[in-house]
Amino acid sequence: MFKHIKELQYNAKPTKPDPVYAKKLQEILGGQFGEITVMMQYLFQGWNCRGEQKYRDMLLDIGTEEIAHVEMLATMIAQLLDGAPAKEQDAIVDQNPAVEAVLGGMNPQHVIVSGLGAKASDSVGYPWTSRYTIASGNLLADFRANLNAESQGRLQAVRLYESTTDPGVRDMLSFLIARDTMHQNQFMAAIEELEQNQKPIVPSTFPQELEKQEVSYSFMNFSEGEESAQGRWATGQSMDKQANFEYIANPEAMGQVPNLNQAPAYIHDTPI
Amino acid sequence: MFKHIKELQYNAKPTKPDPVYAKKLQEILGGQFGEITVMMQYLFQGWNCRGEQKYRDMLLDIGTEEIAHVEMLATMIAQLLDGAPAKEQDAIVDQNPAVEAVLGGMNPQHVIVSGLGAKASDSVGYPWTSRYTIASGNLLADFRANLNAESQGRLQAVRLYESTTDPGVRDMLSFLIARDTMHQNQFMAAIEELEQNQKPIVPSTFPQELEKQEVSYSFMNFSEGEESAQGRWATGQSMDKQANFEYIANPEAMGQVPNLNQAPAYIHDTPI
Amino acid sequence: MFKHIKELQYNAKPTKPDPVYAKKLQEILGGQFGEITVMMQYLFQGWNCRGEQKYRDMLLDIGTEEIAHVEMLATMIAQLLDGAPAKEQDAIVDQNPAVEAVLGGMNPQHVIVSGLGAKASDSVGYPWTSRYTIASGNLLADFRANLNAESQGRLQAVRLYESTTDPGVRDMLSFLIARDTMHQNQFMAAIEELEQNQKPIVPSTFPQELEKQEVSYSFMNFSEGEESAQGRWATGQSMDKQANFEYIANPEAMGQVPNLNQAPAYIHDTPI
Amino acid sequence: MFKHIKELQYNAKPTKPDPVYAKKLQEILGGQFGEITVMMQYLFQGWNCRGEQKYRDMLLDIGTEEIAHVEMLATMIAQLLDGAPAKEQDAIVDQNPAVEAVLGGMNPQHVIVSGLGAKASDSVGYPWTSRYTIASGNLLADFRANLNAESQGRLQAVRLYESTTDPGVRDMLSFLIARDTMHQNQFMAAIEELEQNQKPIVPSTFPQELEKQEVSYSFMNFSEGEESAQGRWATGQSMDKQANFEYIANPEAMGQVPNLNQAPAYIHDTPI
Amino acid sequence: MFKHIKELQYNAKPTKPDPVYAKKLQEILGGQFGEITVMMQYLFQGWNCRGEQKYRDMLLDIGTEEIAHVEMLATMIAQLLDGAPAKEQDAIVDQNPAVEAVLGGMNPQHVIVSGLGAKASDSVGYPWTSRYTIASGNLLADFRANLNAESQGRLQAVRLYESTTDPGVRDMLSFLIARDTMHQNQFMAAIEELEQNQKPIVPSTFPQELEKQEVSYSFMNFSEGEESAQGRWATGQSMDKQANFEYIANPEAMGQVPNLNQAPAYIHDTPI
Amino acid sequence: MFKHIKELQYNAKPTKPDPVYAKKLQEILGGQFGEITVMMQYLFQGWNCRGEQKYRDMLLDIGTEEIAHVEMLATMIAQLLDGAPAKEQDAIVDQNPAVEAVLGGMNPQHVIVSGLGAKASDSVGYPWTSRYTIASGNLLADFRANLNAESQGRLQAVRLYESTTDPGVRDMLSFLIARDTMHQNQFMAAIEELEQNQKPIVPSTFPQELEKQEVSYSFMNFSEGEESAQGRWATGQSMDKQANFEYIANPEAMGQVPNLNQAPAYIHDTPI
Ligand SMILES: [Ca+2]
Ligand SMILES: [Ca+2]
Ligand SMILES: [Ca+2]
Ligand SMILES: [Ca+2]
Ligand SMILES: [Ca+2]
Ligand SMILES: [Ca+2]
Repeated sequence: MFKHIKELQYNAKPTKPDPVYAKKLQEILGGQFGEITVMMQYLFQGWNCRGEQKYRDMLLDIGTEEIAHVEMLATMIAQLLDGAPAKEQDAIVDQNPAVEAVLGGMNPQHVIVSGLGAKASDSVGYPWTSRYTIASGNLLADFRANLNAESQGRLQAVRLYESTTDPGVRDMLSFLIARDTMHQNQFMAAIEELEQNQKPIVPSTFPQELEKQEVSYSFMNFSEGEESAQGRWATGQSMDKQANFEYIANPEAMGQVPNLNQAPAYIHDTPI
Repeated sequence: MFKHIKELQYNAKPTKPDPVYAKKLQEILGGQFGEITVMMQYLFQGWNCRGEQKYRDMLLDIGTEEIAHVEMLATMIAQLLDGAPAKEQDAIVDQNPAVEAVLGGMNPQHVIVSGLGAKASDSVGYPWTSRYTIASGNLLADFRANLNAESQGRLQAVRLYESTTDPGVRDMLSFLIARDTMHQNQFMAAIEELEQNQKPIVPSTFPQELEKQEVSYSFMNFSEGEESAQGRWATGQSMDKQANFEYIANPEAMGQVPNLNQAPAYIHDTPI
Repeated sequence: MFKHIKELQYNAKPTKPDPVYAKKLQEILGGQFGEITVMMQYLFQGWNCRGEQKYRDMLLDIGTEEIAHVEMLATMIAQLLDGAPAKEQDAIVDQNPAVEAVLGGMNPQHVIVSGLGAKASDSVGYPWTSRYTIASGNLLADFRANLNAESQGRLQAVRLYESTTDPGVRDMLSFLIARDTMHQNQFMAAIEELEQNQKPIVPSTFPQELEKQEVSYSFMNFSEGEESAQGRWATGQSMDKQANFEYIANPEAMGQVPNLNQAPAYIHDTPI
Repeated sequence: MFKHIKELQYNAKPTKPDPVYAKKLQEILGGQFGEITVMMQYLFQGWNCRGEQKYRDMLLDIGTEEIAHVEMLATMIAQLLDGAPAKEQDAIVDQNPAVEAVLGGMNPQHVIVSGLGAKASDSVGYPWTSRYTIASGNLLADFRANLNAESQGRLQAVRLYESTTDPGVRDMLSFLIARDTMHQNQFMAAIEELEQNQKPIVPSTFPQELEKQEVSYSFMNFSEGEESAQGRWATGQSMDKQANFEYIANPEAMGQVPNLNQAPAYIHDTPI
Repeated sequence: MFKHIKELQYNAKPTKPDPVYAKKLQEILGGQFGEITVMMQYLFQGWNCRGEQKYRDMLLDIGTEEIAHVEMLATMIAQLLDGAPAKEQDAIVDQNPAVEAVLGGMNPQHVIVSGLGAKASDSVGYPWTSRYTIASGNLLADFRANLNAESQGRLQAVRLYESTTDPGVRDMLSFLIARDTMHQNQFMAAIEELEQNQKPIVPSTFPQELEKQEVSYSFMNFSEGEESAQGRWATGQSMDKQANFEYIANPEAMGQVPNLNQAPAYIHDTPI
Repeated sequence: MFKHIKELQYNAKPTKPDPVYAKKLQEILGGQFGEITVMMQYLFQGWNCRGEQKYRDMLLDIGTEEIAHVEMLATMIAQLLDGAPAKEQDAIVDQNPAVEAVLGGMNPQHVIVSGLGAKASDSVGYPWTSRYTIASGNLLADFRANLNAESQGRLQAVRLYESTTDPGVRDMLSFLIARDTMHQNQFMAAIEELEQNQKPIVPSTFPQELEKQEVSYSFMNFSEGEESAQGRWATGQSMDKQANFEYIANPEAMGQVPNLNQAPAYIHDTPI
């Protein structure tokens, strides 16, 4: 169960309206790595958690924090939209391409659909979809997903920081960027802990003798040129410490030439 | 540019048809972490790569291999569908619930739409979408995405291995599982290399003094109960070695109570 | 079965082309509450109707009218696109930011994909999807959906009316807005009729003693602060006249602390 | 900002696992009118609210409650999945069509993707999308959306109640159904309040003389047969008390025959 | 403008209910090549038509007919759902796997969401999307799209004919299949007419000297093995009669090795 | 299995950056008829092919070529994005509407999400979806789909050629347009071959006496006005040479007036 506190977790006040920037900021609200994604991802990982209680609790802590980030961004976007021009400016616009440029650069749904409110969409107006959410039941796999989400999320927040000079917007972003620093650290710590308790290859419980071990440590060079031989992945001990990497300069096909049966008549595929 | 070789990378031959299993196997062909996702992800990361050539080359190597995995799965699914019952069996079905169960458990599009061929969809028939693809231009972020993809992918392949006893299907899966072992190792190696050259927090190039450093290393306990204090993320040195983790048992709101302006008249929001 | 009449239901003639406005107008053609939605919604409600014939007939009347509204908007958009600049204007554009602003503000698919024709998409280019359509088989529920659709639809049409000064466009919108006035009235009338014949809570046929009646009339204050106590929903007789509203200032949890079983081994969740 | 309480708002404990029912129950978690929809809808309406504080507070109260309903359903589904058969049962299945039927009737992603956890999808596996969310900035419009959502939602919960005999599942549903009773009452009350303060046609602020008033109160009979003349919408005073309804048995076209200009050459439409 | 006639274009009466078949039949109602697709496709092609009036009229004729096909299928599906089992059959099901198989094979939304009505979705429950609709403004291109749609559509209807023995369903399908025969003929005729008036390569108005004519008639053998040399496309006069086909057994790369610039600092891509 | 060659199939080098054009060019990379669609379509048709080997080989040849086209476009787009303005230009922008227009006309995800790389999306940012892919198992049907795809694709490439004056971009497009000329020719040749071996109506294997032959050759005039009588489809021998076309000026309904049964009580539809 949840309770709501009236104050925002941190300030979300722009210095002045900027409806074109509002469109861009939607990316970290409703995009693939926006706050809605991490909110839903951590909450579902927590609710589905069949592992130790400390993981469940940690996931619900951070999932609950992310709802507050969604709230901050929605509040910021509504205020950035305060100055949206929308009315009978035809005559003016004809002489003022700057206003027309603002109108052209806005998300039209911010006027027509949400009436100057935030949308749960990304920066091109594409709606948030739960297919972004990752919750597999295997925490090592999922913490890797989370570390990625916090990396992509901080990268996007930094790019948005670079795209504005508004001190209020930058102040809010500096908070979200700092929390992403913590959250990257947090999932790196959780990953280290799990990798020490189990093996680092997910899932660690599948007996490795059941996999085709001849190809478990081979780097295959399918793209002409051998620059890829220079990486750590091509030589030396494997990261799981089970073998050494091997570089296969010319990988060979090991399988059959496919030859499908004709379909039964009631399928009406091409007659032969 | 690409060339196609007639043989499959590895065998993809079921021992007998199993159209219900064909539906399930679609998950690792066209699902969020199916082979189409990793194929597109690595190819786009390679094509967009503005970093060192060895990374571009490595990404195109593995991206090209993944096209071969898509091919293997498509071939396997077509053969699993060979026995799909579809015709005038009404009378029989009435006495034979097992046949009806097969019909009910199949993906109907395997008969109606693709004529016993594989679809680029997942195990519930949802189409593959490029929103699954991650290519940010920042390789450390993206390699974390790739490590996650290979972790989720191997986990799903293992669950599918457990869901069949067909030796031919298991043989093919044992190959894909082994390659995922390599690919997890490979991206762990690439991540280690990049983390040693830059700082581990993505993006490493954003000046940390611009973020709100008061909250960069604080774990905030937003969910009643303190089991989360027991994790590595709550105490000790942070993973980026810049500070110590701090556990905030009762996080306080630091922001304003939001208070939005009334909308201009031409928006026709609720009148006050 | 349907017949088509060559004339439009009402005039749809802009005074001059305006390709940026064409993009915006797509919202009420192919958006969540555009004419395609109401067309499909009323037709499917009519075709699926298992209630009295007068409801089926009424729904098919209005559904058929909505096809004519789709036609009017498609015709209007095609004409607004007449002036779309698209060719070899590079040199000119460099000196003329106004033209560039028009190009930037257009939906590029209006040139590249539809060749100056309307699309069945919304104002950000997102395609119409049948998940917008509501047809539950319960007419009281569905008439509430329809009243909402006509409310959102008229609101959007009004906002678009405010966003142009073109007399031809405004003339067409004044017709659609008037019809939405009628359609809101119409569904309010139909709702009143059904609420008088059955109870107002949907579905009226579920025995109320089977629901957890302790919480059937309680307003729960989950958000700090008690401004919500001032509304009609917090005190007085309930709208269904079965009880009085009750305001719970501090709602308590009534359920268990969740504790999930470990997953079976073949699922390969996190090992404990 | 939000806080999480460990206990569920109400019990969510099935008497026994039932993975086929788990698939169905997803509808009211991640479907068009599932708990995620109302959670997001009320929270965004609250965060975007530019009206009186009591409405903002009320919306955040109920939005926060809905997060708890999402949590209850996720918890219930995870437990219903406890008994999912998934391993090496081939031999058994051949003699046991009932087990095969269970396997066929399950959502395969509950095993392969989420490892026996709930998904943020509906009962056919379609992901939740934010295009379901309605927040227009006009509260009368939005409260009608909310009344519809609670009507559709209670209807679906009742149908799911009828589809199981498990006392634990029914107990949880009886709670959710009761809350939907309250929430229908609540939004009916809020609508009545707003309709008394403004006019009932949304938006009430658009000057009615600007609409094409000749057709503002006419029911148009576009579908052969006049059963629709028998409804309240065809005769008597209009619901907004501004006029009387009029029944037009044979509506005439009032618009032009469309005649589009040829496209410019650089569009390469069909040459004439 | 449109008018509705009460009778269906042709009978749509099943001999007995069959809810599993109802799920399958959704494919040709709401799938990629279902009746909604062709209805929308022909109507939008007609409304956007800037070519000769006879094409516009023809497209609106057939588009209007397709609305009637949508109506027939919706009506058929509602009747096939009449027998859907949904209530308190737990005890019975335990002994009766056939009933469980029916329940498992149904689309659960047919009960929970639409209350035994048709949905605008396909056979796996995926919603119809307007991205299926093709209307480019170039009629030769679009008539090829239409010929394809009628080919895929008739193929699917035939496969569904083979999947049932119900005489009522087969009677309706025999009508739709016959209309698809006509519609294939119709678009073949329209294509022949246009190809005789313009050149057969779409768009015919682009000056061919502006294309890279060295590769305009070359078949390139990118897949190992030369079986493809045996086709009509590899030798002889080209279909547009402008040249002869040429078979390139070993196609060579003609382009650069890509080498992208480093990104500017404010993008925060990987540092080099 | 596949191999990658470092050189592009043809040059992809713009003369200067143009981030607004980069947004438009996405249409033929990730749109409905972009290179990803044809790549996936031909590869899946090849992998699913149960017909003659020469067709499978031909499809894999062209499918493999299309991967190279995806690569060329991705490379071109990354270079067009080189000049994207994104940083601290607020002060400048205020005086320079041209820069603001560029910013407004760009796809914001090209900066925020992909860091100046191509996306697998279309020109409005909508992600590529596999629902675009057509592979039915019936090659005559599918070759018609392919001829359409190459027609729509060449039309879009030509429109994009007209929208730029950059010689480097035009050079690349002149190559893709030439290949589309070949590919239209190629599928016309393949269609001719198949139509000569089977009958031209798809599927050719369904016994025509099972369809409702009374309506197999009738053009039905559902739209007022008889301009449609002037087309080749209205008179003369049918294209399949089985009959003569017939023009029905006033098509009559041949079906029942629908009358659905009331739903069972447990569905809770509208009570009567
Ligand atoms: Ca966050
Ligand atoms: Ca793989
Ligand atoms: Ca309307
Ligand atoms: Ca609820
Ligand atoms: Ca049809
Ligand atoms: Ca191509």
